[in-house]
Amino acid sequence: MQMEDELASIGAVMGASWAGRKAMTATSGPGFSLMQETIGWGFMTETPCVVVNVQRAGPGTGQATKSAQGDVMQSRWGTHGDYAAVVLSPNSAQEMFELTIRAFNLSERYRTPVVLLADETIAHVRERVNLPPGGALEVLDRKRPQPGETRFFGFETVAPMPAVGEGYNIAVTASTHDEMGMRFTQGAPVHRRMIEALNAKVYSHVPDIVETECHDVEHCDVGIVTFGCTSRSVYEAIERAEAAGVRVGFVRLKTIWPFPEHDVSKLAHSAKKIIVPEMNLGQVSGEVERVTGRKVVKLNKIGGGELITPEEIMEAITGAG
Amino acid sequence: MQMEDELASIGAVMGASWAGRKAMTATSGPGFSLMQETIGWGFMTETPCVVVNVQRAGPGTGQATKSAQGDVMQSRWGTHGDYAAVVLSPNSAQEMFELTIRAFNLSERYRTPVVLLADETIAHVRERVNLPPGGALEVLDRKRPQPGETRFFGFETVAPMPAVGEGYNIAVTASTHDEMGMRFTQGAPVHRRMIEALNAKVYSHVPDIVETECHDVEHCDVGIVTFGCTSRSVYEAIERAEAAGVRVGFVRLKTIWPFPEHDVSKLAHSAKKIIVPEMNLGQVSGEVERVTGRKVVKLNKIGGGELITPEEIMEAITGAG
Amino acid sequence: MQMEDELASIGAVMGASWAGRKAMTATSGPGFSLMQETIGWGFMTETPCVVVNVQRAGPGTGQATKSAQGDVMQSRWGTHGDYAAVVLSPNSAQEMFELTIRAFNLSERYRTPVVLLADETIAHVRERVNLPPGGALEVLDRKRPQPGETRFFGFETVAPMPAVGEGYNIAVTASTHDEMGMRFTQGAPVHRRMIEALNAKVYSHVPDIVETECHDVEHCDVGIVTFGCTSRSVYEAIERAEAAGVRVGFVRLKTIWPFPEHDVSKLAHSAKKIIVPEMNLGQVSGEVERVTGRKVVKLNKIGGGELITPEEIMEAITGAG
Amino acid sequence: MQMEDELASIGAVMGASWAGRKAMTATSGPGFSLMQETIGWGFMTETPCVVVNVQRAGPGTGQATKSAQGDVMQSRWGTHGDYAAVVLSPNSAQEMFELTIRAFNLSERYRTPVVLLADETIAHVRERVNLPPGGALEVLDRKRPQPGETRFFGFETVAPMPAVGEGYNIAVTASTHDEMGMRFTQGAPVHRRMIEALNAKVYSHVPDIVETECHDVEHCDVGIVTFGCTSRSVYEAIERAEAAGVRVGFVRLKTIWPFPEHDVSKLAHSAKKIIVPEMNLGQVSGEVERVTGRKVVKLNKIGGGELITPEEIMEAITGAG
Repeated sequence: MQMEDELASIGAVMGASWAGRKAMTATSGPGFSLMQETIGWGFMTETPCVVVNVQRAGPGTGQATKSAQGDVMQSRWGTHGDYAAVVLSPNSAQEMFELTIRAFNLSERYRTPVVLLADETIAHVRERVNLPPGGALEVLDRKRPQPGETRFFGFETVAPMPAVGEGYNIAVTASTHDEMGMRFTQGAPVHRRMIEALNAKVYSHVPDIVETECHDVEHCDVGIVTFGCTSRSVYEAIERAEAAGVRVGFVRLKTIWPFPEHDVSKLAHSAKKIIVPEMNLGQVSGEVERVTGRKVVKLNKIGGGELITPEEIMEAITGAG
Repeated sequence: MQMEDELASIGAVMGASWAGRKAMTATSGPGFSLMQETIGWGFMTETPCVVVNVQRAGPGTGQATKSAQGDVMQSRWGTHGDYAAVVLSPNSAQEMFELTIRAFNLSERYRTPVVLLADETIAHVRERVNLPPGGALEVLDRKRPQPGETRFFGFETVAPMPAVGEGYNIAVTASTHDEMGMRFTQGAPVHRRMIEALNAKVYSHVPDIVETECHDVEHCDVGIVTFGCTSRSVYEAIERAEAAGVRVGFVRLKTIWPFPEHDVSKLAHSAKKIIVPEMNLGQVSGEVERVTGRKVVKLNKIGGGELITPEEIMEAITGAG
Repeated sequence: MQMEDELASIGAVMGASWAGRKAMTATSGPGFSLMQETIGWGFMTETPCVVVNVQRAGPGTGQATKSAQGDVMQSRWGTHGDYAAVVLSPNSAQEMFELTIRAFNLSERYRTPVVLLADETIAHVRERVNLPPGGALEVLDRKRPQPGETRFFGFETVAPMPAVGEGYNIAVTASTHDEMGMRFTQGAPVHRRMIEALNAKVYSHVPDIVETECHDVEHCDVGIVTFGCTSRSVYEAIERAEAAGVRVGFVRLKTIWPFPEHDVSKLAHSAKKIIVPEMNLGQVSGEVERVTGRKVVKLNKIGGGELITPEEIMEAITGAG
Repeated sequence: MQMEDELASIGAVMGASWAGRKAMTATSGPGFSLMQETIGWGFMTETPCVVVNVQRAGPGTGQATKSAQGDVMQSRWGTHGDYAAVVLSPNSAQEMFELTIRAFNLSERYRTPVVLLADETIAHVRERVNLPPGGALEVLDRKRPQPGETRFFGFETVAPMPAVGEGYNIAVTASTHDEMGMRFTQGAPVHRRMIEALNAKVYSHVPDIVETECHDVEHCDVGIVTFGCTSRSVYEAIERAEAAGVRVGFVRLKTIWPFPEHDVSKLAHSAKKIIVPEMNLGQVSGEVERVTGRKVVKLNKIGGGELITPEEIMEAITGAG
């Protein structure tokens, strides 16, 4: 379905999901910003759906179709209130395929919007994709209610989700509501219980949700935290560094949010210097500093879709830090 | 002017600003989320304006009219791309008045949207406000161009801003553009130069923009970082703590973004324990950890607009940390 | 599902309909205007759905909750391009129930958005409603495709409609498209064929779609064309007129669009004077003039939700015309 | 100013107008539909502004950039409630220039939104435009208030309009309001008085607002009512018809709304047959039937931007009718 604008698209996604289907939409910068209100609606109503944001150079309209990585923090904090973002970051055509399926699986399992945060480089790259035989693909579906069930919201263990029109008595509201969907907009206990459950259903399943690619994390002098297209330059830089006898480890964030604190902490334990190359003015670097309690080497580049090169990363590896 | 929805309102604000007037709008949670795209437009086009977000319990519609502090990170990262948010936080009716004027002054001086991030408690409190005599009030206006000027964008020192219809030849686009407003959506240099200038005009004026209220920052055992309505409980808790012989210092963030790193670092230098009480599940606490490289004591409370009490803060002060 | 605004709501309706469910939304004046773009999307993509517009005094925000009948022409012409509106008008709580079901039946049978154009008086009246036994209720469902079918658009006889996610290869676009859903935005033939089919599937089924309540249409001196809440005053006025020996006939438009030309023409054939009482400044009266080629007596009233009274209609009946 | 979408654009126009500037925006089909709510806001708040709708083939996205004339009725009835649309229709590049200025003059004089309803053919044609010397151009500005004035709304003679920020105490609301801008959403009198004044300020100035190009209106056998690009084929058809000895008159609608009833009636008085060629499925033809009480010959064509040719018009002139 091709709607007229991003507000209509994200609305249609929510409608389709509550009608019992899996639904997604794809957009870039300004469209993602326009969708923030409804994405928050989806978190509060526990609506499974996938939003693909192919990052380009912003803010504003910026440079459309030019690669960038400037929406990382927005994908975590873009809508208001306390919510738990689930955001995945592919670095190849193969992962565009795999992480899209994984995004749906996570969104169905935890009943929450999931963002696939790609970048223009990865979205437009032409590469071989290995499709697994159909049966080999894990495809999860949301838990459905049993006849007579009435509690469809706010379980940390994830409530069952009926489709509208199936005969369940169900109200879907982004106002604070109880397990039956009844609005409660006055006292503290219902709000506290529900919001904590909505956050806990993500944060208590971090081991299932968070996925990284790690390399020499525990035995390195230099550590790199990387994600998306930039990681492809990191691969090459590391080959060169290792050829030159420098021990370099990295954590690649396949899941960006919840932030892979465990692996990044391990890297920091070993590495004397941590480098965060990213195509923005510094976003993941701040999170790494928060988690590790250390200053990091920021390697930033914006504009025209120019990638950070292996040479630039090599320079950061060997430079004073 | 009362528009039909938040999209129309923020659009009208941008139109009025480019027509040469000072303009603002006020909203809460969902409305602020809907405005994110256009706020980013305002940053990219360097449009002075003020957006008041009176925080309530979210996400989604949440508990309308119930106080909360859950939009702090959104006010920094809510729109896409690399931008520099300027966000002020009042803690009294007097400051609602003063910081609104200050928000306009900053937005006019730096040609950028400024957010007044209030909370429901402060917005609805009934208190005496001292109005200074008219002449005593500093009121700044944007720099106007001289006849014949043609460069209206992208100066770190802030470009002059004509009004549309005054005869200047001017295009206003949120696509990447050069100093004359011409779109450049291909190469890196223009984008890099402009975005860096837009960020630098804020970050190179941190001493002018960042304002805090500090108390015993350099001589304390316990340090508190606080903002908005919660700081009123901090005042009272500190009186009690000092009566009990505990040395407590605090930094109150009248400017939340850019983050007052200097004062918070000083506090961390002195305090053995840092407490961050806030009516959310942890937002400013993360930033304090990033800046100080230390874990902090989080004191969080959400739901029903219930304030964090002096007793709860007192407990955190005297508790194990 | 309670969405944040009207754009999200109508988007969710379209998404739910393509996910295979029956979906509706209800709104008033400004919300109906905001939905016009997406309603046109629904016509072009042949999406069954129901939109309830409970009219109140406009334009703009006007007098919310005050009854009016000012959106009749908008319900016919509110979106751009050539489309065939189907609009029903209830005049009792009983008909709110019956015509809502009928609206769904028509929307499913003809795969097109249907508007239930109520007014505040009818929407808020408290009356007994007779619910027929379940089995007695005619409930239609959209035609579903057979496995292997590929042509889902643009049949005058109404194409079958798959749900997304059922495995049919289907693109849904509001750009001009062919029977398979492929975009064709250049030549004339596809556009002409499709738009004519979309209009014809409504206009060639006028006898099924158009419903009126007629009274003494062929033997009257005075004829009244009426709809919605105003018709309740007409009932009473006619009793009085007949008691006074005046022969008054009426056509009540249960379907407003397509316009009941046949019955209105019959009325005009018999009546020497035609009165159109309506709570606006003249809308249906223009259509009656167009259809009959005669000037009519306009009886208009706006503001405060004040109904046109039987006395006022009586006056028009007995007055010079 | 280039905004992100149509909602932002029309919002910016309203903001700029109340900031004291003349403002316009241009769009096509779907964008015009999205703007309907705010255009109604503009009528209710008496906001001068110009909206250009360059018609293309609809409904929905239809055939972008392909010429059509399908939004004529929408330009009259697209928003809810009782309002008086002012809509102009150019048929050359010269008139694009002249009628844009005239649209601004009418919007300033009558304080109301004015629509310039072009079509893709006229908007993209490349023709010589004669620019009058600056002084020869009539440019009207809205009436400004005198210091101390307080009544800014609802005068049939058009109220003075302050700019926000000039020191006048002014509220601008699309709710029903009195002359001072105070909301009155209960009783009938204020609503009635204001809405009647807003309609009357247009309809009582029909001779100033309505403009036509007439040819042999009073002495013809065949009459044509035409507008926009189609009229260029009419010119040529008439030359041929007159060469063949058929007397053909026409009324070209430079103002489409308010509808030029006077001239069209005159034409109908003389002509035995009336032809309405238009690139839609029949819109102006209905209005001509309403005004004249006669059936007309409809000559319709849609799709691919194909114009109605002089030959087709000639056929209609000479055919049975």
